[in-house]
Amino acid sequence: MRLSAFLFDQLWQRGVRHVFGLPGDFALNAFDALAADGRFTLVRFGHEPSVGFAADGAARATGGLGVCLVTYGAGGLNMVNPVACAYAEQSPVVVLSGGPGRAERRSGVLVHHEVKSFDSQLNVYREVTEYAAILDEPRSAAHHIVRALDAAEKLTRPVYLEIPRDMVSAEIEVPDDLAHLELRSDHGAVDEAVAEIVGRLRAAANPVLIAGVEIHRFRLRDAIVRLAERLGVPVTSSFLGRGVFPTRHPQFVGTYLGVVSADGLRYMVESSDCVLLLGERISDTGLGVPADRLNDRNLILCAGREVVIGHHRYQDVPLDGILSQLTREAAILPPRERAVTAEPLALATATPDADDAPVTIGAVIRTLNAFFDRHPEVPLVTDTGDCLFAAVEIRANESLAPAYYATMGFAVPAALGLQSASGRRPLVLVGDGAFQMTGPELSRAAEHGCNPVVIVLNNGSWEMLEAFVPAAGYNRVTSWPYAKLAELWGMTGVEVRSAGHLRRALDAAWQGGKPSLLEIPIERGDISPVLARFVEAFKKRVASA
Amino acid sequence: MRLSAFLFDQLWQRGVRHVFGLPGDFALNAFDALAADGRFTLVRFGHEPSVGFAADGAARATGGLGVCLVTYGAGGLNMVNPVACAYAEQSPVVVLSGGPGRAERRSGVLVHHEVKSFDSQLNVYREVTEYAAILDEPRSAAHHIVRALDAAEKLTRPVYLEIPRDMVSAEIEVPDDLAHLELRSDHGAVDEAVAEIVGRLRAAANPVLIAGVEIHRFRLRDAIVRLAERLGVPVTSSFLGRGVFPTRHPQFVGTYLGVVSADGLRYMVESSDCVLLLGERISDTGLGVPADRLNDRNLILCAGREVVIGHHRYQDVPLDGILSQLTREAAILPPRERAVTAEPLALATATPDADDAPVTIGAVIRTLNAFFDRHPEVPLVTDTGDCLFAAVEIRANESLAPAYYATMGFAVPAALGLQSASGRRPLVLVGDGAFQMTGPELSRAAEHGCNPVVIVLNNGSWEMLEAFVPAAGYNRVTSWPYAKLAELWGMTGVEVRSAGHLRRALDAAWQGGKPSLLEIPIERGDISPVLARFVEAFKKRVASA
Repeated sequence: MRLSAFLFDQLWQRGVRHVFGLPGDFALNAFDALAADGRFTLVRFGHEPSVGFAADGAARATGGLGVCLVTYGAGGLNMVNPVACAYAEQSPVVVLSGGPGRAERRSGVLVHHEVKSFDSQLNVYREVTEYAAILDEPRSAAHHIVRALDAAEKLTRPVYLEIPRDMVSAEIEVPDDLAHLELRSDHGAVDEAVAEIVGRLRAAANPVLIAGVEIHRFRLRDAIVRLAERLGVPVTSSFLGRGVFPTRHPQFVGTYLGVVSADGLRYMVESSDCVLLLGERISDTGLGVPADRLNDRNLILCAGREVVIGHHRYQDVPLDGILSQLTREAAILPPRERAVTAEPLALATATPDADDAPVTIGAVIRTLNAFFDRHPEVPLVTDTGDCLFAAVEIRANESLAPAYYATMGFAVPAALGLQSASGRRPLVLVGDGAFQMTGPELSRAAEHGCNPVVIVLNNGSWEMLEAFVPAAGYNRVTSWPYAKLAELWGMTGVEVRSAGHLRRALDAAWQGGKPSLLEIPIERGDISPVLARFVEAFKKRVASA
Repeated sequence: MRLSAFLFDQLWQRGVRHVFGLPGDFALNAFDALAADGRFTLVRFGHEPSVGFAADGAARATGGLGVCLVTYGAGGLNMVNPVACAYAEQSPVVVLSGGPGRAERRSGVLVHHEVKSFDSQLNVYREVTEYAAILDEPRSAAHHIVRALDAAEKLTRPVYLEIPRDMVSAEIEVPDDLAHLELRSDHGAVDEAVAEIVGRLRAAANPVLIAGVEIHRFRLRDAIVRLAERLGVPVTSSFLGRGVFPTRHPQFVGTYLGVVSADGLRYMVESSDCVLLLGERISDTGLGVPADRLNDRNLILCAGREVVIGHHRYQDVPLDGILSQLTREAAILPPRERAVTAEPLALATATPDADDAPVTIGAVIRTLNAFFDRHPEVPLVTDTGDCLFAAVEIRANESLAPAYYATMGFAVPAALGLQSASGRRPLVLVGDGAFQMTGPELSRAAEHGCNPVVIVLNNGSWEMLEAFVPAAGYNRVTSWPYAKLAELWGMTGVEVRSAGHLRRALDAAWQGGKPSLLEIPIERGDISPVLARFVEAFKKRVASA
């Protein structure tokens, strides 16, 4: 069997239908094989960082693998950041990279794109993936492919497969008993952990549940809703887990960001005598600064196939097993009153802005909440910057954002990946700084059948950084006429002038159906309340460190 | 002494005047310290890949260090490709990255931007730099800084220094006897190697000299000209070494690219009984495909502080020492006839195109040769793609291009780095595919006092790849209206319609003094003769591999 045939069959069987890519000489054979195979849609971008983000967006949107194909050296090494983001945020991106042929390796002549050694790119990817291999042996190629794809699916992390160009069409051995990756599950540990959790829940006066990102990655949304409804406790989400639990569910009380959260929400979580954190480890951006309000005394942490309670730890306990068994056994707990909804932050509830009012961050949040009231099925894709913090107050039901790793440049390509792979039309929120990194990829939206509505918050500044160091000067962003550029790139472009204009322009763009860009001028210093609280908390923490 | 003060003093003493950067939260303290220091000009870009290319361009243009400052994670990991390019092409780029504070490392809480471990980014950079360290100890920070900058200067390779954010202003120990990096030089080996080379030159009937990139990196241009004039032999350059030897020197016979070269030049090199290759190792792109025409029998290789002749090798023999001693001792050799100039390829010499002729690749080459006849002092910056191959026939005296590593996206940011650091105004040659990666950085040209003239060869295709796999389909580049975009970005933008129009538009752009973009429509399939020969040779080689 040819290597490419085996690889493509494996991808197809695992539900992959799209490959995100950018060709280059070491990958030409692989691109040719992909075209000859004919089953996959190739979605091309102009710059490798976008390829990685698009595959990540596709993975997050479909709950499956996000596959990209790039060339060696200038291709692969230009995609380290998005793959690192996928690693940090547990998204199963599969990196397929072309590579020097085995014959070239033997010849001893330096090959262009080579850095320190033929293995440099592999070594780099080892640092940002769960599994990395070069498919340079007909006897082990099938093994590596199966293991890598298993690891991506089962551990929801990126993996790396480098295909020497003379191996693409090589015959490989496919053993009948190809060993799949089996993760160890300790049923005894699951039993004991669940029993302890149930005991803690029974004894607790006011338990709270926090939904983390693994719930989404392992497609456990229904499972956590069942558990929450069985327990009758308030549910919050982590920053990265925003959208993991339905934001309009009556038990959902908001996104918990430590001291950054609304006071009512903070009190609810931090005064709880039993916080059940499902599917995420504790981090400063993930759960606010400082995170030490969640401590040994009140915390049950279930993530990374572990349950940690106090000073002991259960290992090899998969989250799906914990959730289903816990839901069954929670039946013995006495029923609880359904939680009262915590008060949202001020901006999300205020009355609509006057028609001629200037467009503030608050007006954007209010307008988008009204939009998502009417379009609850629309996914929201958010970039890093103040829009990430503003989005905490936007009640989208599906949310994609690099909320933990916090890279800029994510949103536009991830949105194109999302729509390519899932067919769902997204709304995109991006700052001017992030737009200048990858926004021009929108010129490709139409050819991929995508028509996102992109809102560019233009304050001429890396304003999130400026909030940390006011008037630093070096945070200024060069001015671009975003709406006019969008028109040249074949989109609808609108310079929004007022709050009423934003409402009308957003509706018109959505109904119009073309890829659209709404450029919103934001006053310098107008930042979301969540960012303001985040910066304040961060400065205190750094000062005291 | 504060860490930042020591670092900035070291950079200043080594001639650094510009820092290329993009801020981010882990680097804010370093940016503040840089601003407070006040001596350096901060040149900012919109996306980290451009920061790396700009620093590389500055290093190549000044012959000194090119320094960049970025944040941890999303910043540093987004710059691996340009730094890998600098490693492969021996350009001394200094990467300064912010990093998590020592207090954060101790706290155990996950820090955003973190991948596998706190050391992941360091481990990645170890693969693409000569020296990499985290400055997390007051006792060793000064040592690491001096060693890293020494390594960058003496080995002309990139280095990596990560500065934890709470170390920027920390007091560090600066020992009086700070040990500099001393590379071993073996004077006995130099004597013996030079004696052997002189003997070979004396015995040779038709020696040839090939100038490689190290000549430029170690600022040995005058030395090689002296040697060449003393020897009276024809001089050619490698691909990456183009411009290393004055292209208008009477002994210069062109850029040798193996079977890709003009027949006369190939014959001159490959029939030579003594090829003295100075400052470059043999690689397929660097010296053409296949490179085995240069073999043990006729080759003397001096690069990487080694001299290799036949099957033996002299080590610790620095190139400058070899050059100067060889020049002295060559005085005993009998004088030779000055070389006859080899015939250039056809395109470079043809008569000017008719005024209303379409703009072909040939017309571009002829127009630029006429331009460089009038402006021999102008540096040419070339991106990867057919423009790289076309440039082989353009007689610029100073040439910057990623001719070995062959990354796309190099030219625009490198040109801005070149002009920022050296004050010299460049001409830039870039294809549409590469422009879409980093070209929008031109929106920042004016604010950095830069006014390059950028020629975009627009064939709607990654045509270099298309040349390998005709009609592959996946090499199409989305159409951008480059000249109109340039106008929106504050530049002069011209859509060139004919050969005569190109001549006039180029002169007008140069005289006008504004940053300018000339968009040249190129017919699909119209490629430079050098690329055509390269592809043909490459296919033969792969087929026979």
